[in-house]
Amino acid sequence: MSLPRMETIPALAFIAEIDKLKNILRQTLLHDESRRENSAEHSWHLATAVLAGHSLANEEINLERALKIALLHDIVEIDADDTFVYDEVLAQSKAEREQRAAERIFALLPAEIGAEFRALWDAYELQACPESKFVGSFDRLLPMLANFRTQGHSWKKHGITSDRVLKRNASIQHGSEQLWTYAQNLVEEAVRLGYLSR
Amino acid sequence: MSLPRMETIPALAFIAEIDKLKNILRQTLLHDESRRENSAEHSWHLATAVLAGHSLANEEINLERALKIALLHDIVEIDADDTFVYDEVLAQSKAEREQRAAERIFALLPAEIGAEFRALWDAYELQACPESKFVGSFDRLLPMLANFRTQGHSWKKHGITSDRVLKRNASIQHGSEQLWTYAQNLVEEAVRLGYLSR
Repeated sequence: MSLPRMETIPALAFIAEIDKLKNILRQTLLHDESRRENSAEHSWHLATAVLAGHSLANEEINLERALKIALLHDIVEIDADDTFVYDEVLAQSKAEREQRAAERIFALLPAEIGAEFRALWDAYELQACPESKFVGSFDRLLPMLANFRTQGHSWKKHGITSDRVLKRNASIQHGSEQLWTYAQNLVEEAVRLGYLSR
Repeated sequence: MSLPRMETIPALAFIAEIDKLKNILRQTLLHDESRRENSAEHSWHLATAVLAGHSLANEEINLERALKIALLHDIVEIDADDTFVYDEVLAQSKAEREQRAAERIFALLPAEIGAEFRALWDAYELQACPESKFVGSFDRLLPMLANFRTQGHSWKKHGITSDRVLKRNASIQHGSEQLWTYAQNLVEEAVRLGYLSR
């Protein structure tokens, strides 16, 4: 599948390639339970949540930088696939698979912008700036919202307990204490309603 | 489908509501032809294209503003549904349907940020700023790329000719002369390859 005369617009090789992120499926269901969410629509949801909720960040953030990070944070999954947040076996190889993917995919761009995107993605991986931490908060919270609204679909499917949910998502507090308080309440309520086992 | 104690985080009502954009289907297929594209993943693709290609804009743009516009530009489709760009009957009621949707959906947010989002969406509808024009250029070009890569799927399905494609997408030039030159070449090539009728 080629495109005509793309050399005149170098960014188009990247722009066409990333269509593939729409086929990367996550464990999360849509709120209406109709199907699994993909990583492209998740990235939109994340960026828009960051935009709507940026006043909840612990520290002052540069919103443009945060939006860039949210848009780019999962692009490596085109090669490396989505790794379920509770899968401890796949987690061991995740970093290496994603590094290789980042090498290939950001190299599709003109050098200067490819380097910028790579640096943004690296910053997110390292949780190295206030923007990364805040994007990370919503990246953890959104699947919890989806789990709550689907009566605990992927928690139940994978036998996840409330302790693991709290432990795995405690980093929400690094980006937003307010969202972390909310997340803890959500877990309590999920247990009370039988969506999540203690 | 409710969420616990949401009153502590007002933006969450909006953040949860917009999950529905993932169910709004467009006429465009994914590049691999596996299924129709939805408006949430399209919005991600658009915002990321704007980010990767912002140097192609005719005028200097504020990238943060452009990203916000791209993320929000289709949210009204949650109520108003996607209107196929070549559907001239539905086009007549589109503006009114979308205005009503904007009233409802942006009112889910705290007043100040709801007003900001509404103003950004209005600016896009009116194509009233350099950022709107540039986002509009990619909003028109991306479906053309998808059509090209799927051998003219939705052009053929709806009997669209090259004249109509050029006429309907000529506004690309208002945001980016470079993208418009590319789009015209793409149409020529699509005709040559039999993806599009003259």
